[in-house]
Amino acid sequence: MTQHGPNSWGARAAAHSFYGFTDLPTVAERGTIVVTHGEGPYIVDTEGRRYLDANSGLWNMVAGFDHPGMIEAAQAQYARFPGYHAFFGRMSDQTVMLSEKLSEVSPFESAKVFYTNSGSEANDTMVKMLWFLWASEGQPQRRKILTRKNAYHGVTAVSASMTGKPYNSVFGLPFDGFIHLSCPHYWREGREGESEAQFTQRMADELEETIAREGAETIAGFFAEPVMGAGGVIPPSAGYFQAIEPILRRHGIPIISDEVITGFGRTGNTWGCETYDFMPDAIISSKNLTAGFFPMGAVILGPELSDRMGRAAEKIEEFPHGFTASGHPVGCAIALKAIDVVMNGGLADNVKRLTPRFEAGMARLAEHPHIGEWRGRGFMGALEAVADKATKTPFEGHLSVSERIANACTDQGLICRPLGQSIVLCPPFILTEGQMDEMFAKLEAALDKVFAEVA
Amino acid sequence: MTQHGPNSWGARAAAHSFYGFTDLPTVAERGTIVVTHGEGPYIVDTEGRRYLDANSGLWNMVAGFDHPGMIEAAQAQYARFPGYHAFFGRMSDQTVMLSEKLSEVSPFESAKVFYTNSGSEANDTMVKMLWFLWASEGQPQRRKILTRKNAYHGVTAVSASMTGKPYNSVFGLPFDGFIHLSCPHYWREGREGESEAQFTQRMADELEETIAREGAETIAGFFAEPVMGAGGVIPPSAGYFQAIEPILRRHGIPIISDEVITGFGRTGNTWGCETYDFMPDAIISSKNLTAGFFPMGAVILGPELSDRMGRAAEKIEEFPHGFTASGHPVGCAIALKAIDVVMNGGLADNVKRLTPRFEAGMARLAEHPHIGEWRGRGFMGALEAVADKATKTPFEGHLSVSERIANACTDQGLICRPLGQSIVLCPPFILTEGQMDEMFAKLEAALDKVFAEVA
Repeated sequence: MTQHGPNSWGARAAAHSFYGFTDLPTVAERGTIVVTHGEGPYIVDTEGRRYLDANSGLWNMVAGFDHPGMIEAAQAQYARFPGYHAFFGRMSDQTVMLSEKLSEVSPFESAKVFYTNSGSEANDTMVKMLWFLWASEGQPQRRKILTRKNAYHGVTAVSASMTGKPYNSVFGLPFDGFIHLSCPHYWREGREGESEAQFTQRMADELEETIAREGAETIAGFFAEPVMGAGGVIPPSAGYFQAIEPILRRHGIPIISDEVITGFGRTGNTWGCETYDFMPDAIISSKNLTAGFFPMGAVILGPELSDRMGRAAEKIEEFPHGFTASGHPVGCAIALKAIDVVMNGGLADNVKRLTPRFEAGMARLAEHPHIGEWRGRGFMGALEAVADKATKTPFEGHLSVSERIANACTDQGLICRPLGQSIVLCPPFILTEGQMDEMFAKLEAALDKVFAEVA
Repeated sequence: MTQHGPNSWGARAAAHSFYGFTDLPTVAERGTIVVTHGEGPYIVDTEGRRYLDANSGLWNMVAGFDHPGMIEAAQAQYARFPGYHAFFGRMSDQTVMLSEKLSEVSPFESAKVFYTNSGSEANDTMVKMLWFLWASEGQPQRRKILTRKNAYHGVTAVSASMTGKPYNSVFGLPFDGFIHLSCPHYWREGREGESEAQFTQRMADELEETIAREGAETIAGFFAEPVMGAGGVIPPSAGYFQAIEPILRRHGIPIISDEVITGFGRTGNTWGCETYDFMPDAIISSKNLTAGFFPMGAVILGPELSDRMGRAAEKIEEFPHGFTASGHPVGCAIALKAIDVVMNGGLADNVKRLTPRFEAGMARLAEHPHIGEWRGRGFMGALEAVADKATKTPFEGHLSVSERIANACTDQGLICRPLGQSIVLCPPFILTEGQMDEMFAKLEAALDKVFAEVA
């Protein structure tokens, strides 16, 4: 339909890009959208089309696509010091200041920070840290990693092994020893007649049985997103973290909160573990950490893991791990600004202020006969399409219902994300009431159009 | 000696940073150097001390620490479009243009590019691509990865498994199926009376025997740095790639050239595979790609792998892999500028022009009775310390000779890198004659001082 000319931007993109996480038949049919710039929460493509990005880029552009303060902070640091590393006992002043700030805003009394370039690298690093730690403490057999089905922790071979998505089988992953517990999604996974409290208890029992079966002495750590993101925005069932935390503690299994999406305000608090009232041993951060202005991940170690890791490293005089751009001065200056903009510049407040409106909009759309459930927390939500609401029966896969809804949105200038049979919304924190209303109006029109076609 | 006050920058760094690739006793003794800015190839710390960084940061800051054109390109793109992804059939215009440029400057007739945030992620991605490809083509058992001892391919659990360094044992790595061939370092690994040609033939025979032993039908690919970097700047023995290339071809094993360090001019040509005259199936790029101004890696697939990977992805309608910041518009704009600055702005020419002076300086220092060998290519070189030159006997490990030399350099305002018993030099491409002379004069003084102490 567009961009099919041989010198079009779409054709140029296709000629030399190897596409990832892209539905290839859709691109073949609709062409590639090549984006030139943004205005607030909108992006604009090479044809001058404007789209409200209800996806915040990839959950990360929470300050929008042209935040003046963020741009200025990035430009100023490029003028001051445009690149350095954090190896060999050298690092930039910005790196020192960001680590202090992350310790201050973390849920921990005090923290130590290790930088990476992405959430994938941060999770991969955390696994290596746990393997290193346990081996140093005389328990080298503690290597198994517990995560959940539908979890998303990244795409390096190890973080993909932690991710509980079936598509990883095409790589021959997960590796052995990566164990996926059940997804605590009560609406979809709850049994006939099972209360939410009973469901939560079943999740806890499964954890207890898994630890007993595998042996606590073989398990290195447990990783969880407070709200599952790329699994389809799945908040835990009521009391989930309160039920599992004591079990993990009793067996000495470190709890890692993957806050790549939930960190810095997405769920209405600084951290998702605050929203769900549990205390992890370490936090994985990325995305919002720089408001998407720079690739950065961070492993934030709480006091106990900091101390134990410190002793392990001192024993061999070095922690032999690190990325070239770990603690890059520009990334750190940007993160310092992003934290300030989100926490003190009104963005986190805006999320809190507009969450009731977001929830009301979702609840209204969920009245649709082909929406089985709406779920979410703060500024992240999902609407799950169903062929039959009473039985929760999904549409047949070949209908590609969520992709069709997303494409119908795109045609109207709204970007939202199809995930399984759900449509996910995770708007930028700068969204206004009017933009939120625009988002829901366009999505509703798309739902009406597609459900009229398929139902 | 410095920075030990409780509110000093050094103490602040130590309080909240978990150090990687850092000799902890050295930091405990000497404090952390906190860097505020740079001037050309020099960095300046919080105490106002100035250091000529003969390490180019981490091989990557090839245009120095304040290149005006690079800074301007970064600032301009932040003003234009400060962040986006490359999923779902959308990507920025800068991403499209960089992929075209990388295809153009690659050794391939045509290429397709997949972006990551680091060399580690690029190598990890390439492994996943090979596993995906072979499984799609009906050979899921082709999973083993061949690399070499002393190779450095990164620090994710998989790229660390490819890295042939003993320190990875502290993580319980490498994973099974990562096979490390011998390091083609003739001076150190050659046998009594063995000519360099015989040594090269032995390397080729070992490869042939390894393939026969493991079975070609179990091997996914072979990865090599044209010149090993973090292994201690080790160029291959004469004829090495010519000897192994036909063996790998005959067994259908893809050849991946890891050009994270050698790419974009370090060895005197755009690619290390040009310098050593072999044709890989794919190239891994990072570091110089953005002159260190932005975290970025790239997998550059040659025509055959592009086609095969494309067919494999089309079969399942998607390549289910990608990083949030893959193809970030600012990174791509910076890379476009870096490639132009290096290739057309005089930097690559400067490397070629000053390589004879670099070689002469290295050769002169190698006359020292405690330097066993100098080796290198273009603007990368190493001097290996020995207790006895005739027998090539190394100094005892507890003497930490290379660390002491590096520290003695630091005290004079020169940064170079200790690697094993070698001192590595990899200066920025902007280095002048005078700066090169300063580098060698300071290093010579450090060598004299330390060898007088230990010999």
